[in-house]
Amino acid sequence: MRPKSFDPDEALDRAMELFWLRGYDGAGISELLGAMGISRQSLYDTFGSKRELFIRVIERYRATQLSPALALLDGDPPHLDHVRAVVRFFEDLAGDERCRGCLVANALVEMGPHDAEIAGLLGETLALLEQGLQRTLEKAQAAGELPPSKSPTTLSRALINAILGLAVSGKLPIRREVLSDVHEGTLAILD
Amino acid sequence: MRPKSFDPDEALDRAMELFWLRGYDGAGISELLGAMGISRQSLYDTFGSKRELFIRVIERYRATQLSPALALLDGDPPHLDHVRAVVRFFEDLAGDERCRGCLVANALVEMGPHDAEIAGLLGETLALLEQGLQRTLEKAQAAGELPPSKSPTTLSRALINAILGLAVSGKLPIRREVLSDVHEGTLAILD
Repeated sequence: MRPKSFDPDEALDRAMELFWLRGYDGAGISELLGAMGISRQSLYDTFGSKRELFIRVIERYRATQLSPALALLDGDPPHLDHVRAVVRFFEDLAGDERCRGCLVANALVEMGPHDAEIAGLLGETLALLEQGLQRTLEKAQAAGELPPSKSPTTLSRALINAILGLAVSGKLPIRREVLSDVHEGTLAILD
Repeated sequence: MRPKSFDPDEALDRAMELFWLRGYDGAGISELLGAMGISRQSLYDTFGSKRELFIRVIERYRATQLSPALALLDGDPPHLDHVRAVVRFFEDLAGDERCRGCLVANALVEMGPHDAEIAGLLGETLALLEQGLQRTLEKAQAAGELPPSKSPTTLSRALINAILGLAVSGKLPIRREVLSDVHEGTLAILD
C-alpha cells in the first residue's frame, strides 16, 4: 500500500504551530506526527529527522512569517512609518493570547548556545530583518525624516533588540497598555 | 548512616548554573545531582521535586543576581547614570561567552505559557526591576535630569523590554560592537 500523499508545506505549517507553542524539546515526535497528520515513516522519508524538520520549519517561518514583516518596509515615504509598522507587527505577535512569542527568539533561547548550525540560521534570519530596517532608516535619513546625527546601523540594532524583547514579553499575558508604553518608549529613539 | 550534610545555598548555586546554561528540561536529574554533589534522596528531602528546586533557584537568582543590579540604582545623582549602569549590567550578561542569557528570560520563554505559578514568579521578578527603574527615573526627573515630557513609566517599560532583548541577543555570540550600538540606541530614549 502506498502511503497517503500529503502537502509538505501544510505539514510544515502544522509542525511550525507545535514547535512555536511548545519549543523544540517540548514538541514530541508522536505529537508532531499527530499534528502533521503523517506517519513516522513519511516524516523520516520526507524530512530526515526531527532536527532537520525543525530546520525546514525555521526556513518556512522565515518565508511565511518574517517576509510579511519585511514587506512592510517597502513603499512610499514617509519611510519611518514603515519602520514603525514593523515594530507594531512584532507587538501584535507579543500580544497574541497564545503567548507563543516568536519562533526565532524561542529557538535562540532554547538551542542557540548548543547547536551551531541552528544558531547560524537564526542569526541569519535576524540579520535579514536588521538589514531591512537599516536600509529603510537610511532612506528615511536621505529623505530628511531622520536627523543626520542618528546612525541607521545603531538604530536598527537597537530595534532588533527591542523586537527580541517583545518576543520574550509576549510569553507573559502582557497588557495592551504595557505594550503601548514599550512601543512609545522604544520608538522614541527615532525622534 | 546519616547522609552527608551539605550547604543548601551552595547546592542551589550549582543547580542555578546548570539550569541557566541548559534550561529546565535540558537539565536532567542525574546531572543536577552531580552538579549539586548530593543524593537523589537529599534532593527530594530538601527541595521536594525538580520543579520546586527550580522555584528555589529563581528565588536565589533574584537574591544573588538581580539584587546587585537593583543596588546599582541607589546612590547620589546623577540618577540617569544609575539607570545606564543597570543597562550596562545586562549588556555584560549578554556579552558573557557562555551565552547563558538571563535565567529569568530563559525560563519565561521555556515555561511562561505552560506554568502559571512560575510565570507569576518571573513576572514579579521583572516587576521588581521595572519599579526600581521607574523610581530612579522619577528621581532623575525631579532633579531636572530628564525632560518633563518623558514618562518614567513608559521609559521603564521600554528599558525592561530592551533588557529582555539583551537576554535573547546574548544567546548568540554577539559582537561587542553590536552590543555597544544596542546600548547607545536604547539609551537614546533618555535624551
